[in-house]
Amino acid sequence: MPNPAPSSTIHEEYAAFKAKGLKLNLTRGKPSTAQLDLSNGLLTLPGDAHYLAADSTDCRNYGNLQGLAVARQLFSELLGAPPDQVLVSNNSSLALMHDTVVYSMLKGTCDSATPWSKQGEIAFLCPVPGYDRHFRICEDYGIRMIPVRLNDDGPDMDEVERLVATDASIKAIWCVPKYSNPTGAVYSDAVIERLAAMKTAAPDFRLLWDNAYAVHHLTDERIELANILEACARHAHANRALVFASTSKITYAGAGLALFAASPANVKWLLTRLTPRTIGPDKLNQLRHVRFLKNHAGILAMMEKHRALIAPKFHKVLDIFDQKLRGLSDVRWTRPKGGYFISLDVPQGCARRVVALARDAGVELTPAGATYPHGKDPRDCNIRIAPTFPELPEIIAAAEGVCLCIHLAIAEKRSN
Amino acid sequence: MPNPAPSSTIHEEYAAFKAKGLKLNLTRGKPSTAQLDLSNGLLTLPGDAHYLAADSTDCRNYGNLQGLAVARQLFSELLGAPPDQVLVSNNSSLALMHDTVVYSMLKGTCDSATPWSKQGEIAFLCPVPGYDRHFRICEDYGIRMIPVRLNDDGPDMDEVERLVATDASIKAIWCVPKYSNPTGAVYSDAVIERLAAMKTAAPDFRLLWDNAYAVHHLTDERIELANILEACARHAHANRALVFASTSKITYAGAGLALFAASPANVKWLLTRLTPRTIGPDKLNQLRHVRFLKNHAGILAMMEKHRALIAPKFHKVLDIFDQKLRGLSDVRWTRPKGGYFISLDVPQGCARRVVALARDAGVELTPAGATYPHGKDPRDCNIRIAPTFPELPEIIAAAEGVCLCIHLAIAEKRSN
Repeated sequence: MPNPAPSSTIHEEYAAFKAKGLKLNLTRGKPSTAQLDLSNGLLTLPGDAHYLAADSTDCRNYGNLQGLAVARQLFSELLGAPPDQVLVSNNSSLALMHDTVVYSMLKGTCDSATPWSKQGEIAFLCPVPGYDRHFRICEDYGIRMIPVRLNDDGPDMDEVERLVATDASIKAIWCVPKYSNPTGAVYSDAVIERLAAMKTAAPDFRLLWDNAYAVHHLTDERIELANILEACARHAHANRALVFASTSKITYAGAGLALFAASPANVKWLLTRLTPRTIGPDKLNQLRHVRFLKNHAGILAMMEKHRALIAPKFHKVLDIFDQKLRGLSDVRWTRPKGGYFISLDVPQGCARRVVALARDAGVELTPAGATYPHGKDPRDCNIRIAPTFPELPEIIAAAEGVCLCIHLAIAEKRSN
Repeated sequence: MPNPAPSSTIHEEYAAFKAKGLKLNLTRGKPSTAQLDLSNGLLTLPGDAHYLAADSTDCRNYGNLQGLAVARQLFSELLGAPPDQVLVSNNSSLALMHDTVVYSMLKGTCDSATPWSKQGEIAFLCPVPGYDRHFRICEDYGIRMIPVRLNDDGPDMDEVERLVATDASIKAIWCVPKYSNPTGAVYSDAVIERLAAMKTAAPDFRLLWDNAYAVHHLTDERIELANILEACARHAHANRALVFASTSKITYAGAGLALFAASPANVKWLLTRLTPRTIGPDKLNQLRHVRFLKNHAGILAMMEKHRALIAPKFHKVLDIFDQKLRGLSDVRWTRPKGGYFISLDVPQGCARRVVALARDAGVELTPAGATYPHGKDPRDCNIRIAPTFPELPEIIAAAEGVCLCIHLAIAEKRSN
């Protein structure tokens, strides 16, 4: 298919594709069945009569609000924090982020004079395109979202510094610092240094550091971020960063562990906030993970197996985009070195139409706009592609279908 | 030891007891190791290659915010609600209660015109003596606690009706309707009917129905409560009751399931509130429980095994109290037919002293006052005894020690 293709040919090809009656889904960043199978050792763990942790904690009973010591040790390197500054929770890091925001709203952070909910309207900076579920938390609790441009090396720091310097209502910035959702951007050392060092008008400003893809490499390059907790401490902003991660895409998406790391004061604050909520997390699942993953090397070995399964899917999508979309003006896509997504930009005003055309042809895509606050992409050009869940033949069909829809949407735009 | 014993004898006996250097703990309602062992079948479940629920849900992956259909079916009878009105969550029902309060504060219930946090000071009714962790949630979020007397058949309903009828700031009442913590009270059908029927000034009034001991019988009598959800619906207050339960004292205290049941509107409300927080609960643990407990009969059979382990502990404590405390004026204790606690009243002004004396002699008791809002028992007379966790010889020693401390505290009071 040469570009731009004649409109009549495109219509025919789209009709033929639609006639296949496919049912494909590229919406969410879900591990595939084969990826989940990698952790099936968990299904019979911790094992008969195994319920004591190394420190003799009975994992079946109440207690251990901060999580098992052995589990905090296991994830210490991934989080870049000593075990004392790590908290291991139940299966959802999104829940930890949500609760952190809720506690800050109702009670304030350890640096807040009053709860955020009593400080008038507050705002979060939202690098865009970004993760829809981060934005959803803001939307739900009436937190104003201020979009800032996400570059290949992180958020536009001139803009971030300018905004936080004078506006004390800006309380946080959402960050996916490595292999970001959806662009795959990796925050550079310089950006991390500026985030840690910058002056903020709000004394209780927080970096919500969602390092969801900390070890989720797609290439031989094992990119390492600068340590945000250390950088913040060095700049006398020790409480600024709240680091989140999970094993959702290491072991099981629905039955993994959520991870948190922060300064001692922040950990103490979170434990105080959690005390009225629960007596402790599910320690048996933590023991299961410790017995299964063993150590940081075990985590990295597991991630190599994931990579072997998903890197070919990314390559195939990129190959098809290269073949079918190259040279189309205002069409570009990212080549992520890790994570779960490809970010695809189509000509302004075309993203919704592409998603609608794809849906009509049986290819479900993430709603256009999802990567922007309130689901509204002001230029209507960004589409998030999630190639991990379907099997390779489905991905090929879906990616080819998406390309057809892009050509068709462009042809329609031209003829209008 | 006859009563009241001569003070010199008591001092000698207490000194001798203290000299034993015991280290006993009657503080928290924790299952014993033998009780936890009953569920060790869970340690290798769901089992090799078992990760699909009956409806083919892959329990390893994301999703199912309301919990597995088979898990909702399993607990339907225990909760007294159809599976569609059941939600199964992670390991802590306290967390579900906490979050329900937090969501109501920040966003309002499905019947609230505005969030509770924007309605000025709000208040909860707190039947006393009651559960410290309920009160702690109120304390943490600045919810005023109004104590009402808990009788053997439930809260003093004349008082409850009088209070809620005119005061719209009263938003809820904490209820442990069966084998209550700590008295063992069981709400009568008449009390339940009045709670369901009563007029409340607040249109968004809620019964926080913590049925923690729904199947936790200590006698042959399997006491059944009137169905609160049905009663509320019958009185056109379908959204009034929020029912909570858990498997913390059925399977594992730290690695069980939290359960919720309510009207369709409340379930929809909770799902809407949970949507920004998480993609779903740990379904593998739900599958584990379904495979292990199988059905309601399986739950009841398990509870018989628990009873066989813990009823003798309760009997022994009660025997010792009967022997050593009978006839002491203003000393009385409950004879619970289920649950995890014995409530012990000592003469006014003596509870703190008894707990202090016991601690000095190596017997840790729940802090006096813990069963009242803000940890303050206005008469300083209630002590909560939790006999499930220690082994029988320790319980005997501890109960005898407590009796000694009561005699000593009374002797001290008399001599003042």
